[in-house]
Amino acid sequence: MSSSFGTLFRISTFGESHCKAVGVVIDGCPPGLSLAAEDIQPQLNRRRPGQSALSTDRQEADQVIILSGTENGKTLGTPIALQVANKDQRPQDYGTMRDIPRPSHADYTYQMKYGIRASSGGGRSSARETIGTVASGAVADKILREKFHIEIVAWVSSVGEIDAGPIDSKAITRPDVDATVIRCPDHAAAAKMAKVVAELKEKGDSVGGIVSCVIRNVPVGLGEPTYEKLEAKLAQAMLAIPATKGFEIGSGFAGTRMRGSEHNDPFTQKGGRLGTTTNNSGGVQGGISNGEPIELRIAFKPPATISLPQNTVDFAGEAAILEAKGRHDPCVVARAVPIVEGMAALVILDMLLRQEARKAVQFR
Amino acid sequence: MSSSFGTLFRISTFGESHCKAVGVVIDGCPPGLSLAAEDIQPQLNRRRPGQSALSTDRQEADQVIILSGTENGKTLGTPIALQVANKDQRPQDYGTMRDIPRPSHADYTYQMKYGIRASSGGGRSSARETIGTVASGAVADKILREKFHIEIVAWVSSVGEIDAGPIDSKAITRPDVDATVIRCPDHAAAAKMAKVVAELKEKGDSVGGIVSCVIRNVPVGLGEPTYEKLEAKLAQAMLAIPATKGFEIGSGFAGTRMRGSEHNDPFTQKGGRLGTTTNNSGGVQGGISNGEPIELRIAFKPPATISLPQNTVDFAGEAAILEAKGRHDPCVVARAVPIVEGMAALVILDMLLRQEARKAVQFR
Amino acid sequence: MSSSFGTLFRISTFGESHCKAVGVVIDGCPPGLSLAAEDIQPQLNRRRPGQSALSTDRQEADQVIILSGTENGKTLGTPIALQVANKDQRPQDYGTMRDIPRPSHADYTYQMKYGIRASSGGGRSSARETIGTVASGAVADKILREKFHIEIVAWVSSVGEIDAGPIDSKAITRPDVDATVIRCPDHAAAAKMAKVVAELKEKGDSVGGIVSCVIRNVPVGLGEPTYEKLEAKLAQAMLAIPATKGFEIGSGFAGTRMRGSEHNDPFTQKGGRLGTTTNNSGGVQGGISNGEPIELRIAFKPPATISLPQNTVDFAGEAAILEAKGRHDPCVVARAVPIVEGMAALVILDMLLRQEARKAVQFR
Amino acid sequence: MSSSFGTLFRISTFGESHCKAVGVVIDGCPPGLSLAAEDIQPQLNRRRPGQSALSTDRQEADQVIILSGTENGKTLGTPIALQVANKDQRPQDYGTMRDIPRPSHADYTYQMKYGIRASSGGGRSSARETIGTVASGAVADKILREKFHIEIVAWVSSVGEIDAGPIDSKAITRPDVDATVIRCPDHAAAAKMAKVVAELKEKGDSVGGIVSCVIRNVPVGLGEPTYEKLEAKLAQAMLAIPATKGFEIGSGFAGTRMRGSEHNDPFTQKGGRLGTTTNNSGGVQGGISNGEPIELRIAFKPPATISLPQNTVDFAGEAAILEAKGRHDPCVVARAVPIVEGMAALVILDMLLRQEARKAVQFR
Repeated sequence: MSSSFGTLFRISTFGESHCKAVGVVIDGCPPGLSLAAEDIQPQLNRRRPGQSALSTDRQEADQVIILSGTENGKTLGTPIALQVANKDQRPQDYGTMRDIPRPSHADYTYQMKYGIRASSGGGRSSARETIGTVASGAVADKILREKFHIEIVAWVSSVGEIDAGPIDSKAITRPDVDATVIRCPDHAAAAKMAKVVAELKEKGDSVGGIVSCVIRNVPVGLGEPTYEKLEAKLAQAMLAIPATKGFEIGSGFAGTRMRGSEHNDPFTQKGGRLGTTTNNSGGVQGGISNGEPIELRIAFKPPATISLPQNTVDFAGEAAILEAKGRHDPCVVARAVPIVEGMAALVILDMLLRQEARKAVQFR
Repeated sequence: MSSSFGTLFRISTFGESHCKAVGVVIDGCPPGLSLAAEDIQPQLNRRRPGQSALSTDRQEADQVIILSGTENGKTLGTPIALQVANKDQRPQDYGTMRDIPRPSHADYTYQMKYGIRASSGGGRSSARETIGTVASGAVADKILREKFHIEIVAWVSSVGEIDAGPIDSKAITRPDVDATVIRCPDHAAAAKMAKVVAELKEKGDSVGGIVSCVIRNVPVGLGEPTYEKLEAKLAQAMLAIPATKGFEIGSGFAGTRMRGSEHNDPFTQKGGRLGTTTNNSGGVQGGISNGEPIELRIAFKPPATISLPQNTVDFAGEAAILEAKGRHDPCVVARAVPIVEGMAALVILDMLLRQEARKAVQFR
Repeated sequence: MSSSFGTLFRISTFGESHCKAVGVVIDGCPPGLSLAAEDIQPQLNRRRPGQSALSTDRQEADQVIILSGTENGKTLGTPIALQVANKDQRPQDYGTMRDIPRPSHADYTYQMKYGIRASSGGGRSSARETIGTVASGAVADKILREKFHIEIVAWVSSVGEIDAGPIDSKAITRPDVDATVIRCPDHAAAAKMAKVVAELKEKGDSVGGIVSCVIRNVPVGLGEPTYEKLEAKLAQAMLAIPATKGFEIGSGFAGTRMRGSEHNDPFTQKGGRLGTTTNNSGGVQGGISNGEPIELRIAFKPPATISLPQNTVDFAGEAAILEAKGRHDPCVVARAVPIVEGMAALVILDMLLRQEARKAVQFR
Repeated sequence: MSSSFGTLFRISTFGESHCKAVGVVIDGCPPGLSLAAEDIQPQLNRRRPGQSALSTDRQEADQVIILSGTENGKTLGTPIALQVANKDQRPQDYGTMRDIPRPSHADYTYQMKYGIRASSGGGRSSARETIGTVASGAVADKILREKFHIEIVAWVSSVGEIDAGPIDSKAITRPDVDATVIRCPDHAAAAKMAKVVAELKEKGDSVGGIVSCVIRNVPVGLGEPTYEKLEAKLAQAMLAIPATKGFEIGSGFAGTRMRGSEHNDPFTQKGGRLGTTTNNSGGVQGGISNGEPIELRIAFKPPATISLPQNTVDFAGEAAILEAKGRHDPCVVARAVPIVEGMAALVILDMLLRQEARKAVQFR
């Protein structure tokens, strides 16, 4: 059940790098929704490798097919299976890595956990596994956007030591983000980031970065205390993305250095509801959305697979030098943007359905 | 189901500040374990208020009773219900707060989510709710410690702007941590932290801080990709603790600034297994434990309830000044230490049971 | 998690015969519901032993206490813990059975499954465990009755070879059922049943029976294909009750002997909806309620604990004669009536909440 | 989540009659298992229509493809996606039924539940949906058979009023069952059953029947009280199969007429364990397997879709006569045999994994 996520809008993903297909089954999608492959493809295109000279050179079409759950372009309320064929089903370029587990990659832990592992490409730990997340996230995103006017936008806010300047999270759009290849809306910073990534690609090294995400127009009341507080499920969702090492909501770690008197967000009247004049809470109080924008930051480590030679040991414990071949991204954050948006959409929609369920039977 | 946590070792908590009792039901505890209230009480004592002049003055005995699931001091494998009576069941000191939602507290979001809220003390969003987590976490901790030699130790690594110096996470023990009231093992820093907290208590303000946690002797192979990766469940667990705003594992946000060539943890031979020479991964690779210590950092915001007057609005949207009365902690991190340990134990034990289940039926 | 049941209205039960208390935690109860112990006690009273000379002589008050989740008589939307103290916490009268597993009882299987068992009374397999089901079922029943006008009535339709005559399931009420001690609304049959039970009590033998149940005014659309079809969850719920061996909905086993042309329920116009002129379907088609009464029958075997001597073997496999002492029911069906009603209420309410959740977000 | 089933061995099915494909994702399959399409195809062949002149004339190859989760013929421990293409994706022959809901079919309830329905063939309520169950059940069955020597055999024990004579459930095999087209091992009864079905096919009518199932060599200790007792999960599993109306384990409804002194199964020594001399319990005591054969009976109603004209009303409530065209089975029990075996295998394997998990961490 660990490849499933969500309670009322529940996804189950499958597939690894070199099997026949990767995909996802969505159980609990509301019936009557207009849905076609074209609704899903754009986010997959933003995720796929080979979008620019900065990322891996692999060319994968990643065309999604809807196998079930719709008829005449409408969802039936039954499970929706989405599938993307793997063009390249042959293991290749991974010869060396079979005997030498890549440092900080999943080769060793997969082998030890399952007693077996895919001979190539990391199997289920590869980024290719995120296709199911992105495809189902695109469906959730469409529902949130069209029915509830909720907007989710993620962007790259740092690459290595290069930080983007302040971004207006109230206004930023996906086209703004896509204006640069590195998906950083601060164009000056983006240029520097692209330069660093290009240099590291040349060198065979890699670098980490931070993806920021805002979720706007979330109604008050989403999140299910105590173990499924909104920030708890968002944290789980984001740390389930490959290569993540940290999560912040609102003031995050910086907030630990503040006084309550400066950190507290005073209430004010905003249209028909109470709002706050500041947003250190990041849109969540007591584990429940308060109507303000939800603001997240997710830390991505530098990708583990690099071409530079590494001193390590093989599976038998013998000293070895690993020089990975193959096609590798020097920095994953640009491609991680639609994954972060997808996970956010999956969490928010599931919480929305659960709160709508509560409201429908509330006693007054 | 949102007050439940875990798959094979599953807890369900209940209770708010001023009802008859708070507690937890544990479903899936291994049978035959020696278990008495004395095994659970110490962690509850570390959590309870009134331990020192630094925290709230409330005196609550928080004595745990085992209602079911054991006979002659042994667990039966049936649900174990643990209960702590609420001594003080009368709402008090909360008069003003009834009409003015506390900024950055859960008063407003609970009212909007449920259409009703406990008249006092934040109900289920109060720290009192964590008793169930700590009590069940103490049971999990005992199993991990006695049967699997897994050690979990958390400590305070910062309060406001005061950072502890380097701590040896390989060696630190709970007695080390408890040597200072603030639970920071760097005694010089601890003295400064205590001073700041005392001043803020006097002033009626509050401050945030960071709790660090190490989990030692975790076997290779724990964690369930993809949505229940070890770090994903740990992140959910920690962000479910009241007042948390951030989570890091291993290199965390600092790791985003590193190159792959410096961030990767080279393998080396360690006893009968492969280990790593560095631990930027924080003990987890590909969502699965790699046998190295798991290292976490959790950000706690300053508590929302302060005595300083705050300019805000009441539920009707009218301008108001809130001067909270009652008994409030100026800093929660010292009391958060056993909560963090408890959540960590719950995650690790559940993952351990799931991996043992896999190993028992593996084909070779 | 096996002591939990339900998805949106989820219960977790605890407790065995001779521990301090038995009870249940309800997670997901709609907020704002008026709820007091008096709403729950009547069904517990119908379940408890010692109601008549026909059942066991044990006198247990079984007074329920609400520990959490309400304030000022209203539910808060937070977990509701319900508890019934065990008056008699001493094992007794079970001396012999410690070494000789009772035939057809759970002594042997519990010992083998858990490697340990409660030294007395069957522990978690005892009927006392059903208190949690009945108490939480009474809460579900109240919501169904007051907010959705759904009525659930169960009754005894056979004891041994004595069958009740036809019962008008459209009209029968709980007071009708309670008019006889054996809870059979056919008074002539009830008298015969009571006589048989009294004779068997005298002899130290036991007998089985059938409980029928009707659920009226269920809206069209409840049930979640494919593995949580309405009849599938009802079957699980009923077979989870101790001593059950069979389940039927609508035409049941008799329907297997019919032709489609006679079994099919033709549609007709009924008020604002389509209804059917016959009800062989038992209110369910394709796993989903169709608006007609849901009609169930549940088979209960004769209780395993009897006083007559039984030739069997002890745990070591040595031939032995078991003469059970203690207080035992010769027939459980009368006391099973509120348990069947409780399980039915738990299933229907959970399915209702899930369908309301769907309707709230349906596209049109 | 209602199209998912199981806890540790968890399946999620998808697909309806006329979409691109039907299938299933298995999460939690033990790693290292040899698995190829050939392991799965035989049970699909036993399920598919057109096997004999007795069933529908549709010819569907139902070839299964393994999309993911294996490499070099071994399972990786990752999700296994199994897919069967729908050859015939065009709705046809269903013209009339669009406006007139078929009596006792799911047309009406699906439309009311989801506000939309597949225009043909019953969509998700069609028997085609069971392909996912059978395919994943075949994987579970292989594990049970090869690693644990557990044998599951189902057969037809009645069709309409024709009952098979006594069958030796200790010895019966699948080849025995497949020796007759109707899958009834009593050849004399089988001939009569086949004749009745042929007559009804000619007439355009249908008939019900009973499938019996035995599960042999189940270890003592499977089943998770209280709501996931072994019989409770088996009952859910069987009642989730289309067209089922009843479930019995062991003595079933007949057992209600017995005395405890005759119904109780005395213990005896059997090899290294305790066994019983009779098996009225049907292999389960207190919700837990006792090592004896598990014996089940499942009632199937006559299929709802018949060609005989039926007086009913259309969706608007206007009187109408329905004469269904298309390809329909007059009796589903022969094809239901592998479905019953599949559901049984899914329940037993999941319970086995859960008990192995318990044993691995038991204290002694």
